[in-house]
Amino acid sequence: MNLDQVHAITTQILLQHGMSQAQAAAIATTVTGAERDGCTSHGLYQVPNYVASVKRGRVNCSAEPTLGDLAPGVIQVDGQGGFSPLAVETGRAPLAELARRQGIAALSIINAHHFAGLWPEVELLAEQGLVAFAYLNSSSYVAPAGGTKPLYGTNPIAFAWPRDGRPPLVFDQATSASSRGEIMHHQREGKPIPEGWAIGPNGRSTTDPETALAGAQLPFGGYKGAALSLMVELIAGALVGGAFGFEASSLDAHGRPRAGGELIVAIEPGCCVANDLRAGQLARAEELFAQVLAQEGTRLPSDRRYAARAHSIVEGVRIPALLYETLQKLQKS
Amino acid sequence: MNLDQVHAITTQILLQHGMSQAQAAAIATTVTGAERDGCTSHGLYQVPNYVASVKRGRVNCSAEPTLGDLAPGVIQVDGQGGFSPLAVETGRAPLAELARRQGIAALSIINAHHFAGLWPEVELLAEQGLVAFAYLNSSSYVAPAGGTKPLYGTNPIAFAWPRDGRPPLVFDQATSASSRGEIMHHQREGKPIPEGWAIGPNGRSTTDPETALAGAQLPFGGYKGAALSLMVELIAGALVGGAFGFEASSLDAHGRPRAGGELIVAIEPGCCVANDLRAGQLARAEELFAQVLAQEGTRLPSDRRYAARAHSIVEGVRIPALLYETLQKLQKS
Repeated sequence: MNLDQVHAITTQILLQHGMSQAQAAAIATTVTGAERDGCTSHGLYQVPNYVASVKRGRVNCSAEPTLGDLAPGVIQVDGQGGFSPLAVETGRAPLAELARRQGIAALSIINAHHFAGLWPEVELLAEQGLVAFAYLNSSSYVAPAGGTKPLYGTNPIAFAWPRDGRPPLVFDQATSASSRGEIMHHQREGKPIPEGWAIGPNGRSTTDPETALAGAQLPFGGYKGAALSLMVELIAGALVGGAFGFEASSLDAHGRPRAGGELIVAIEPGCCVANDLRAGQLARAEELFAQVLAQEGTRLPSDRRYAARAHSIVEGVRIPALLYETLQKLQKS
Repeated sequence: MNLDQVHAITTQILLQHGMSQAQAAAIATTVTGAERDGCTSHGLYQVPNYVASVKRGRVNCSAEPTLGDLAPGVIQVDGQGGFSPLAVETGRAPLAELARRQGIAALSIINAHHFAGLWPEVELLAEQGLVAFAYLNSSSYVAPAGGTKPLYGTNPIAFAWPRDGRPPLVFDQATSASSRGEIMHHQREGKPIPEGWAIGPNGRSTTDPETALAGAQLPFGGYKGAALSLMVELIAGALVGGAFGFEASSLDAHGRPRAGGELIVAIEPGCCVANDLRAGQLARAEELFAQVLAQEGTRLPSDRRYAARAHSIVEGVRIPALLYETLQKLQKS
């Protein structure tokens, strides 16, 4: 399937299930970007989930996100209970403009349901020359440091750094040892999960995916990863006003599930140094990247994603037969 | 020794070795705060290092940091080649004021030599009701993901969240698996270090502190910690204009070692939500903390430090005999 076809089938399915044109187009772009970059778990694989959420009335499928100012350096997008891609798109250009003017600016996103990766938000800002950070929480799956029961979401952190004439350096990583999807993948394949990903309901380390899903995931890197997960929970929950992971199944005033929050921070690099250093910031970063790559066995965080992108733009992507069937059924239903 | 005595002896030693009153007072406050909080590696133990740096002419011991505006939301302190405590102090109140006005603001610190923890910068901002982040790099000790040679600093990240009527929630953690000091401590005690802290010069995992110090430290949590370390290097080096870890031994225009950079970001929580949610942000965070502490075996990141503080304010602190002797010699020299 080429990428245009990915976009077309996604749009068509979403429209057919009642999504507004704007919501559908934004989601299709996000889904296509994920397929393009080899991140299949956020790609077409999610389309049935978008549809299911609409069918269950959990998400407002024709939501029109609204943009507001909260402070000279802070804006907010209220997703109005829709999906995140359109909410993020609504805030992106205003955030970039604000960051260029203020030096640093923040975009808070509330009432938007997230089925996508975090990297698109930061990558597209860095493509415009900005340094970008994003923080997002999700439903409770991860135990706090020392604890044994799910409390935090898998709470990803994303970061992007602009590069001259090349796509930005980007990472987007869960603060849990693995994603939920990776454990489910092991379950489907009947394979044990690595030690350190999860504990069972009894609080003991497990390598059995089933036991792991019934228990709690672990933060990456022990108490340090747990502290970062707590930080994301505070940012996306208390600071921005989204639901905490443990509140994700609670309902909002419209009887719909409450969405977690997201914070995106953008910095204009030229505003962080005196005039005479402005021209050299990106070149200096390239010196650092060269030092990383000079060591055998290394790569930069986003290299694999960009390699997949270069390939899929030319060759298209392969869709598992079962997923293709599911999508065809959705097209007809 | 009570805390006033810690402050007094530090000030006296620093003045005696040529430090200006302002530099000495700021460092003494930082050293005392570290002793108070049980973080002895940043306490009196560092005083001989401050003195040695002055003696070797590596640091400008009477530097008067300068403050400047870079953008509506960004200010900069140039430490003028002095130590970091006075530079941080110079920027703190202006940063807090700017964050309150703009919603989000950043302070970039350059040309300041860091021998202290990062938590004081964020804790003091959170005591004023702000959410604060700090990023700092250090000399090359840590291998990049997949690599085997030192490149990144131990590059700490600190975060603080304000609490009503209680000290802020704070963490300050190296992006390396352990601090350099912890490995040296194991070396002094003749004990092996845990697996996963470091690799030897041959690139293989080691538990021997000597081999570790000759080789490279490892990031915490594998490639995810390495990505965070790279992020800190980019922020403190390329963004802010400090030296990268691998440049830390290079000299500046005055023939002095180049200092790494530091970025502190402060957010006014009330500027991140609509009016009606403002009153509830800190209370909501307390609900999250209660959920953490409801699980057996958990504690909040800063609990141990505050327990040490409560104890030392009343009981004072114990200084190892050898360190006390060293300090007495420095007092007389």
